[in-house]
Parts: sequence; C-alpha cells; structure tokens
Amino acid sequence: MGIEIERKFLVKMDLWQALEKPEGKHYRQGYLLNKEDRVVRIRIAGDQGFITIKGAGDGISRIEYEYEIPKSDAEEMLERFQPEGIEKIRYRIPEGSGLVWELDEFLGANQGLVLAEIELSSQDQRFTKPDWLGQEVSEDERYSNSSLALRPLQS
Amino acid sequence: MGIEIERKFLVKMDLWQALEKPEGKHYRQGYLLNKEDRVVRIRIAGDQGFITIKGAGDGISRIEYEYEIPKSDAEEMLERFQPEGIEKIRYRIPEGSGLVWELDEFLGANQGLVLAEIELSSQDQRFTKPDWLGQEVSEDERYSNSSLALRPLQS
Repeated sequence: MGIEIERKFLVKMDLWQALEKPEGKHYRQGYLLNKEDRVVRIRIAGDQGFITIKGAGDGISRIEYEYEIPKSDAEEMLERFQPEGIEKIRYRIPEGSGLVWELDEFLGANQGLVLAEIELSSQDQRFTKPDWLGQEVSEDERYSNSSLALRPLQS
Repeated sequence: MGIEIERKFLVKMDLWQALEKPEGKHYRQGYLLNKEDRVVRIRIAGDQGFITIKGAGDGISRIEYEYEIPKSDAEEMLERFQPEGIEKIRYRIPEGSGLVWELDEFLGANQGLVLAEIELSSQDQRFTKPDWLGQEVSEDERYSNSSLALRPLQS
C-alpha cells in the first residue's frame, strides 16, 4: 500500500510549448472500475504494464496499490474489456530539490490539455514553482485522469 | 492470460463427511467488481495474496488473469473496501490421472455448501468421477463464487 500525495496544476501553454523537453514516455490506460471511492486501472507505460487499485481520495492524498504485470496482459485486457481510458505522453522534469515534475500531454479526446503533477512526501512539503506553472487544480475532480476518461475535455 | 476450463459438482454430503481428508487451506476473497462480464477479485489463500481479473464466461471456460500480491496488501484491501466476499476451506484431492479435485467447504453465509471443482486442459477432457461426486453445476451461475458472494446460499 502507498499513500499518494500529489499536487496538480494547469500549464501556461505558450511557455510550455517554448520549453526544451526531455524525451517523453507514452501512457495508455483504461479503467475496469471507475468510481469515486474505488478505481481499478490497467496501464501501459512505455514497455511496462501495471494494475492499480485506488481508494477514496482525501484532499490531495489517495490510497494506492500498484503492481507490475506483463505488458502483453495489460494490452489484452485493454483490448478485451475496452474500458474508458486516456492516452498521454509523460515528460519528467526535475524540480531542483530532488522532486520531479510529471507533465502529461494528453492525446485523443483530451488533446490540448497539459497537466503538471508533483508527488510529495507530506501534504505541506514545499517545492519550487517554475514559470510555466499555471493554476492549481489538485482538488478539482474534473482534472483527475479517471474523470478525463469518462468526460473528456472536448465533450 | 489464461483460459480457465473448469467443471463443478455438488457433493454427496454423507460420503464427503465420511471421507478422510488432507489438510485444508483457508481462503478469504472479496470482489472489488462483480459483474457477469468483468470480475476483480482479491484473494487470501493461506499465506499468499492474489488479485484476479476475470472476463465473460463461455460455457465452462473463462478468461482469467491472476497475479500474486503481498498478503498484507490483500488484507488491507479487504478491510478498506469491505467488498462482498466468501470464505471457504479448500481441500485438494488427487483425481488419479494427474488431475486434482478441489473441494471447497464454504463458511459464513454459505456454510453447509461443499463444491467440487476440477480444472481441465480442454473442454472435452475425461476424468474419473469419485463416488462422493453429486450433480454437475458447471453452468449454473448460482454456484459461482462471485454469485455466492452476492447471494449466499442461506439467503
């Protein structure tokens, strides 16, 4: 079990587009179960597969259980169950003090959306805000990946 | 991915009770998702934990993906999500030609029910029927573990 503490922000698109980015990794994920208090997610991240179970969120914290599984199993399950899902490119950019910004550039029905996330060890941990960082949306449920799978930005 | 091909039978209780049994293993399992075409099961079997995803059944066959997880995670998830579940003691009895009978003696709300299962490599594989074997219930959905979790025998 892990408790995921994460803050999430919109991105200033002009500054983001001008940024020199490291190579991104392709993510494809679908939700076998997608409720507010119980999520079962199948994810393909680059050449790895994962199954993740998430519990109810409490502010910026959320219980999470994640296990690596064969990528071929993850592909088969996404193919077989055709769950609602999302696709994105994830870029990892060092924050400067040991933390990492994960920037998700969404594809498909959420194309045009870029979200920046930072995973913290405690709710009040401080971090450096880069100039491309926009409005915080940590507690805005519309921007969770599971919501974006059900209600894409373009709908 | 695996395809599970399984035949399932009731048991003649007088003969079963008179049988000398090997030591059984305690199973406790709950269903995070329990639909006809999509099941997510958390299982504790003795000192091991598992997460299992099952697809739609087709007669006696069913697609199944199973992964071992830490037993402590399985316990936590059953505690946290309180999913409908079942509890049973499983006895393994050799069938004689390399196959194994799994006899499930249900506890709790399904107490009094004993089911015998045999896993086959093909739908038409033959096997020996012991004298304690009762009526076949392979395609009777009421006797699937996921149904017994939702609608226990005693209800």
